[in-house]
Amino acid sequence: MTETDTHDQVTQANRAALRLANVDEARRNAALADIADAIRENSEAILAANETDVEEAERMLAEGEYTQALVDRLKLDEGKLESIAGMVESVAEQADPLGETLAARELDEDLELYKLSVPIGVVGTIFESRPDALVQIAALALKSGNAVILKGGSEASESNRVLYETILEATADLPEGWATLIEAHEEVDRLLSMDDLVDLVMPRGSSEFVSYIEANTQIPVLGHTEGVCHVYVDEAADLEMAEDIALDAKVQYPAVCNAVETLLVNESVAEEFLPDAVSRYREEGVTLRGDAATRDIVDVDPVTDDDWRAEYGDLELAIKVVEDVYDAVSHINENGSKHTESIVTEDADTAETFMTGIDAASVFHNASTRFADGYRYGLGAEVGISTGKIHARGPVGLEGLTTYKYYLEGDGQLVASYAGEDALPFTHREFDGEWNPGHLADE
Amino acid sequence: MTETDTHDQVTQANRAALRLANVDEARRNAALADIADAIRENSEAILAANETDVEEAERMLAEGEYTQALVDRLKLDEGKLESIAGMVESVAEQADPLGETLAARELDEDLELYKLSVPIGVVGTIFESRPDALVQIAALALKSGNAVILKGGSEASESNRVLYETILEATADLPEGWATLIEAHEEVDRLLSMDDLVDLVMPRGSSEFVSYIEANTQIPVLGHTEGVCHVYVDEAADLEMAEDIALDAKVQYPAVCNAVETLLVNESVAEEFLPDAVSRYREEGVTLRGDAATRDIVDVDPVTDDDWRAEYGDLELAIKVVEDVYDAVSHINENGSKHTESIVTEDADTAETFMTGIDAASVFHNASTRFADGYRYGLGAEVGISTGKIHARGPVGLEGLTTYKYYLEGDGQLVASYAGEDALPFTHREFDGEWNPGHLADE
Repeated sequence: MTETDTHDQVTQANRAALRLANVDEARRNAALADIADAIRENSEAILAANETDVEEAERMLAEGEYTQALVDRLKLDEGKLESIAGMVESVAEQADPLGETLAARELDEDLELYKLSVPIGVVGTIFESRPDALVQIAALALKSGNAVILKGGSEASESNRVLYETILEATADLPEGWATLIEAHEEVDRLLSMDDLVDLVMPRGSSEFVSYIEANTQIPVLGHTEGVCHVYVDEAADLEMAEDIALDAKVQYPAVCNAVETLLVNESVAEEFLPDAVSRYREEGVTLRGDAATRDIVDVDPVTDDDWRAEYGDLELAIKVVEDVYDAVSHINENGSKHTESIVTEDADTAETFMTGIDAASVFHNASTRFADGYRYGLGAEVGISTGKIHARGPVGLEGLTTYKYYLEGDGQLVASYAGEDALPFTHREFDGEWNPGHLADE
Repeated sequence: MTETDTHDQVTQANRAALRLANVDEARRNAALADIADAIRENSEAILAANETDVEEAERMLAEGEYTQALVDRLKLDEGKLESIAGMVESVAEQADPLGETLAARELDEDLELYKLSVPIGVVGTIFESRPDALVQIAALALKSGNAVILKGGSEASESNRVLYETILEATADLPEGWATLIEAHEEVDRLLSMDDLVDLVMPRGSSEFVSYIEANTQIPVLGHTEGVCHVYVDEAADLEMAEDIALDAKVQYPAVCNAVETLLVNESVAEEFLPDAVSRYREEGVTLRGDAATRDIVDVDPVTDDDWRAEYGDLELAIKVVEDVYDAVSHINENGSKHTESIVTEDADTAETFMTGIDAASVFHNASTRFADGYRYGLGAEVGISTGKIHARGPVGLEGLTTYKYYLEGDGQLVASYAGEDALPFTHREFDGEWNPGHLADE
């Protein structure tokens, strides 16, 4: 791939985006159904390619370069492939995110403004080694009318290539260039320089990686980085509930970004709560570290300052005793990653103080942090979990892949009539209605 | 101002943002009323400071450094000051942009997700010489609960400083640091490096300036750059209406970003339309340039390729004859700045082709491009007109200064119950309701 090749590809994606924006819902859904069928029909080739990736990954595992978790995530089988095909069908079943009337306002008689949802345009995505990520992102992009540039992890390169070719063959009647696979790191760097052709970059990875992307592009970035999530056990907590939530949030799936990393315990319940909680964590094999007040009550290793900002992503947990809810809020706003924070309490006012005081995408009351997820939130599939605050926050579904456009219908209005001494007034009246470019003329 | 000073100021803004997010609507509105009163009471000092700025600007004008237009925009008088105070009061009257329930969804029995609008946090703004810009931006930031960093044009430095001090004195009971004035270019550069403390930067200026900001920060940027807007006169246009719209879009206020820069005329009506239109433009003193087909019909100067992407911001216009609506759409998507584009036609299908085919924040049918404005759109005051597609597009009012936060109310739910073989199903049922952290416990 030369520089010119990448530029030509991205230019074609940009043209495809303009055309894809006007492909109607039925055709987008039919294309998604075709993708699901093609994945099923092509399963043999996909699994063969995946085996090549897995063999290479196992070689790297033996050399200590990869983890077993990475190899597990990489591996496809008939069952996983069927669930990928099913996911594509479920994206097709979602409500159309395009053409939705977000607002309709009469500015004056026969001068009507409509705000409609539209695709963003060209979205560049950079994601990790799970091969289902490529299919999920392509399906969401297609459903939302966006041209997409896909860059997967090199560990999954054979699987990704076959999946991509399967998708392209199944969507041959869509505008050419709607989906583009790029494979080399140099291509990513070139993509980042094309801010006139690419509308959004969505990288998933460590905060260092997302930071690198942000520092090297003028394209807006919607980053998906780690989560340093907390559970705060309040003095008014139901302590049995608190134990269950604190445990679920850590052990149900410790490798993910919505797992808890630091447990905060109100000092007035610490003596009652910690011994039982610690023994349940130990049964599940969790390594614990605590501050001095915690270690006065239970025998755990001491924390270092780094622990407060660590995303362990594993069966490890830091514990801190705090004075009150304000102390908990301060600790979280200082050390958290604005991802997901949970309070366990029976006191509504304390819950409100915690939930409104914390700056995070998701704030929970009496529920496990692990619920922060596009599927559980009812958004359908997700492109990622945004740890930024601009455009889309928290789990990002189809809506996060749209923007809006203002449509104004007039019958010859001039701004000169609404300015100066005899200026006409605006009515600015909201109404229910759909944009229809003919209707003023028909009246 | 040293580097440490700037860092301390921005850290304080960040802390103020967390507190301001929970200042209720009544207190924010009362503070806005106090600002309006203080501007009226302090008018003498404000006008004196403004006179210093204007004198300096007139000296620069005499030296040929500034334009008369800049001096005019800079100049305040009692009447303008009263309208600035009135604008602050009108911001107070707008609906509260915070705490709005954007969605409420039951995930399962007694597990309820609410999506609420919240402030963004710390917003850095960089704007031009009109002193009313400082007051307008500060008022919108306060209404939307955001801490704001203000950097105005150096031409207005004396006016800005007195206006800023007036605002600060009037809002002494708000969290300290909610508004911060910075004055030196080095402070802007330092601000741009504080991506851990600043959530959004909103620069207004040339596309080179906004591009410089984007290239030098990892903070998300919502840019306000120029507009290269078009009016397309279709073969099915009411030609009298087309003449009026084409004229209004150019001459009603040529210095602004929503004025038309290129007129596109369908070849089948060019001979009928152009001679009259050209003579009306000439009466208004507009300098005209045209492509070869235009010059076959009317006697205007030839265009160069640069004209198609020029924002004249003045009484100048480029004219091009196009084959049909598709040709017009291609020209606009190739050369426009995605700001505002208008078609004049009596044919609804052609209008639809134009409006859906063009990628721009605003697309108009039978109306002047000059309507693209936050006030005319009914958004109240505006912070700017976004020429990007992410987060907020087109005129940006209070809504563009908000993001959202998910609030989940449970009664002890664990993700383990919703995973694995006996997984509970989610209900994912939308409902009407307001977040209330006590209500599950009360039932």
